Amino acid sequence: MDTEHERCAMRIIAENTSGVLRDIATVIAGHGANILMINQEIFDSGPYAGMGELYLEYEHGPEDREHLVRDLEAIKSVRDVKSFQPFGDIFGSRVIIIGGGAQVAQVALGAVNEADRHNIRGERISVDTIPLVGERTLALAVDAVSRLPRASILVLAGSIMGGEISNAVDRVREAGIPVIALKMAGTVPEHADLVVTDPIQAGVFAVMQVSSKAVFDIKRVRGREF
Amino acid sequence: MDTEHERCAMRIIAENTSGVLRDIATVIAGHGANILMINQEIFDSGPYAGMGELYLEYEHGPEDREHLVRDLEAIKSVRDVKSFQPFGDIFGSRVIIIGGGAQVAQVALGAVNEADRHNIRGERISVDTIPLVGERTLALAVDAVSRLPRASILVLAGSIMGGEISNAVDRVREAGIPVIALKMAGTVPEHADLVVTDPIQAGVFAVMQVSSKAVFDIKRVRGREF
Repeated sequence: MDTEHERCAMRIIAENTSGVLRDIATVIAGHGANILMINQEIFDSGPYAGMGELYLEYEHGPEDREHLVRDLEAIKSVRDVKSFQPFGDIFGSRVIIIGGGAQVAQVALGAVNEADRHNIRGERISVDTIPLVGERTLALAVDAVSRLPRASILVLAGSIMGGEISNAVDRVREAGIPVIALKMAGTVPEHADLVVTDPIQAGVFAVMQVSSKAVFDIKRVRGREF
Repeated sequence: MDTEHERCAMRIIAENTSGVLRDIATVIAGHGANILMINQEIFDSGPYAGMGELYLEYEHGPEDREHLVRDLEAIKSVRDVKSFQPFGDIFGSRVIIIGGGAQVAQVALGAVNEADRHNIRGERISVDTIPLVGERTLALAVDAVSRLPRASILVLAGSIMGGEISNAVDRVREAGIPVIALKMAGTVPEHADLVVTDPIQAGVFAVMQVSSKAVFDIKRVRGREF
């Protein structure tokens, strides 16, 4: 990210028409700002029922942000524009834990407790999990991690994983996201950056890796087993 | 969501110029499709270094999707377009757990184990957590839950929460997201839909509520304490 550009967030309430995003993107591009994230939902109740809610994160230079907001408010289909803090300031880097329920819960136990110690000192590390079963289902979830916003490390927690899941692990690592695997049957441990026997320690290592304050660097222990 | 419209996902690799989203949104709007989510990142290494990666989810009618992909590929700054399954098919409804580390970990233990039982039967319930400290920090995180994609229920896990956090709980509930609180000091339990003493049971209740297969309905126990 350009250091002169700050990440900003806003919520826009607008009529639910298919051209509204084009109009908003046109105004934002006209201000030289770069949209990084949009999420759109339709209100199904309340005063805005049937209207669209767009949550946007964008990079903006030090120019007049109030002017951008006014130009957005001037779009005919736009009803309300409100600024927020971006998700990254609130939920921070994400540790993703995927695998069998029993082990995912134990890795989460280690990761949440370690994240607590970091977040007390001002970090914002979140720990996101999904228990799943089946090679195809797991491989799809692993592959999707590289597309998840703010995903910073993946822990695979199970007793046997291989085949398509190992190929997905390779792709996640190529996308720049390190992978920790529990010691388990199957080929996944051979494809991971680090193999850990104790699930609680695996969770702690994962948080130490994404922390901006800890001294742990997974590159220095790559290929090792604990 | 319109039942005639299917939720689709694609990844577009394009030059990192501020007008590229406008061009893509124009093509998509021209096909009558409705963009629901976009996430944009810049590759910092690899063959696409410096280029933008746009992940999009959109609703599209039963018309020719291949035609849409071809029209997107024809945009000058676009290098690659690839279709994926949307996140909702992979990670499903999200249970969000916020609070103190010790309690967040125990609620996650209950939620992950219960989600495992549901996901084995074909659901895709994920359990996302963040341990935090401080009234203002917690209130910001609680408020942001209503803007998180696929967030379906919130569990507040702590020993004392009130003030600004209670106001944020009201806003999350107004946005249609039910809130479970552990039994604790402070006013948050008075503002929650349900108060639960055992953190593991709180996690189980949360998953039962978001499940499409369980018979639990938080509306039928609203205001009760377990």
